[in-house]
Amino acid sequence: MERIEKTGFGEMKLIQDPEDFCYGIDAVILADFSNSICPDAETIVDLGTGNGIIPLILSHKNRKASITGIELQAKPAEMARRSIEMNGLQNRLSIKQGDIAEPEVYSGMYADMVTCNPPYFSKGGGIPNEKRAKFIARHETTAVFEDFAKAAATLLNGKGDFFIVHRPSRLVDIFYYCRKYKLEPKTIRFVAPKEGCNPNIVLIHCTANGGKELKFRQTLFVYNQDGSYTDEIHQIYERKSEQCHINLQI
Amino acid sequence: MERIEKTGFGEMKLIQDPEDFCYGIDAVILADFSNSICPDAETIVDLGTGNGIIPLILSHKNRKASITGIELQAKPAEMARRSIEMNGLQNRLSIKQGDIAEPEVYSGMYADMVTCNPPYFSKGGGIPNEKRAKFIARHETTAVFEDFAKAAATLLNGKGDFFIVHRPSRLVDIFYYCRKYKLEPKTIRFVAPKEGCNPNIVLIHCTANGGKELKFRQTLFVYNQDGSYTDEIHQIYERKSEQCHINLQI
Repeated sequence: MERIEKTGFGEMKLIQDPEDFCYGIDAVILADFSNSICPDAETIVDLGTGNGIIPLILSHKNRKASITGIELQAKPAEMARRSIEMNGLQNRLSIKQGDIAEPEVYSGMYADMVTCNPPYFSKGGGIPNEKRAKFIARHETTAVFEDFAKAAATLLNGKGDFFIVHRPSRLVDIFYYCRKYKLEPKTIRFVAPKEGCNPNIVLIHCTANGGKELKFRQTLFVYNQDGSYTDEIHQIYERKSEQCHINLQI
Repeated sequence: MERIEKTGFGEMKLIQDPEDFCYGIDAVILADFSNSICPDAETIVDLGTGNGIIPLILSHKNRKASITGIELQAKPAEMARRSIEMNGLQNRLSIKQGDIAEPEVYSGMYADMVTCNPPYFSKGGGIPNEKRAKFIARHETTAVFEDFAKAAATLLNGKGDFFIVHRPSRLVDIFYYCRKYKLEPKTIRFVAPKEGCNPNIVLIHCTANGGKELKFRQTLFVYNQDGSYTDEIHQIYERKSEQCHINLQI
């Protein structure tokens, strides 16, 4: 069942259906990471936008950018459009429904910044019937990572920035295809549950036609050793208390 | 001036000339990392072996393997041969002088495990005249990383393990060329001076024709917060006290 959720980013609200998919920490940290590097982006495209959480958070952080989200599935695309209207952002946010594995979907579009929180799991195995929307959001059922890199390279057209949140286990794919499409990985940040744990999320910043040198940012830890959220997570969520939900499920 | 150094690995001694190049922690941790994953390798090739430190340490850890080191420069190659003789290991260790950028150098050879501690710095800028031996060991003056990956793939011939120690800033190059030559990165371990610092060394294990999933090992820290070596560094150096030199310069 659909619900309207306070995001904690100003007065921003979001329509989502927990039966299908709820946004998680990955979307929130990608919005923060990308905006920290490119706070003045003017034309942003979010590939595989789901319920539009990344465009919505970015519109709160960057008050001038025009942002388009592209989403394969009709239901989340439609919910994202309603969230944009509910927040009165239809003058600079829009949603396009389509499969980014098909270049026609983004042909004629342009961006100086592209973000993506793509499906984490590789193709393989059958597609179960149940909870299909959630499954599609998490698995490379149509577009694979190469399609995301290709779309980003086309949208940026040789100049601009590409931001990815993904699983560390997919790092070889990410670097291989980013390099292939001349989106050079420049900055990497691992995210781990807490100190002493291996990373379970990775943030990557690429620049179109960038020089070949990868820089590391300090690992972001989600929890302190006592199980409370770290100060940086509170900052990223822009809140001082437990006033809104943090969904850490990925 | 040449000197004979106790390595701390059993009675192993090594000839090296500090004017040219001294082995560092990178060689020692690569030998440990590779042997921990492939303790039963039978035919090992070390690409860019320098003064032969990696074959020598591996021969101590793996008492059956035949190990060949390939080195571009005549002087360290000759010192490596004398170290092998001094340790009485000429029955299973050998050194071949040649440039691994030239496939003839390794044609006809075979390995089930390949190691490399390649030059860390990309081509670029002029080659200063002074300390040329050291400069060549550290910079891609002839072979670039792609040559190392190509040589490893040829030697392994579709089956076996490839181990690399390198700088984290070169990770995109490493993943790109390993994937290109079907040496799939499977295990990664970062090495950092101490907790809270960014990594300055990375260890990578690839398997020829391996499946696409990268696994992370816990970061190896060299120092405790008080500046002493960590227990794991002592274990890797196989010593209980400060009985031999650790050269951390890379």
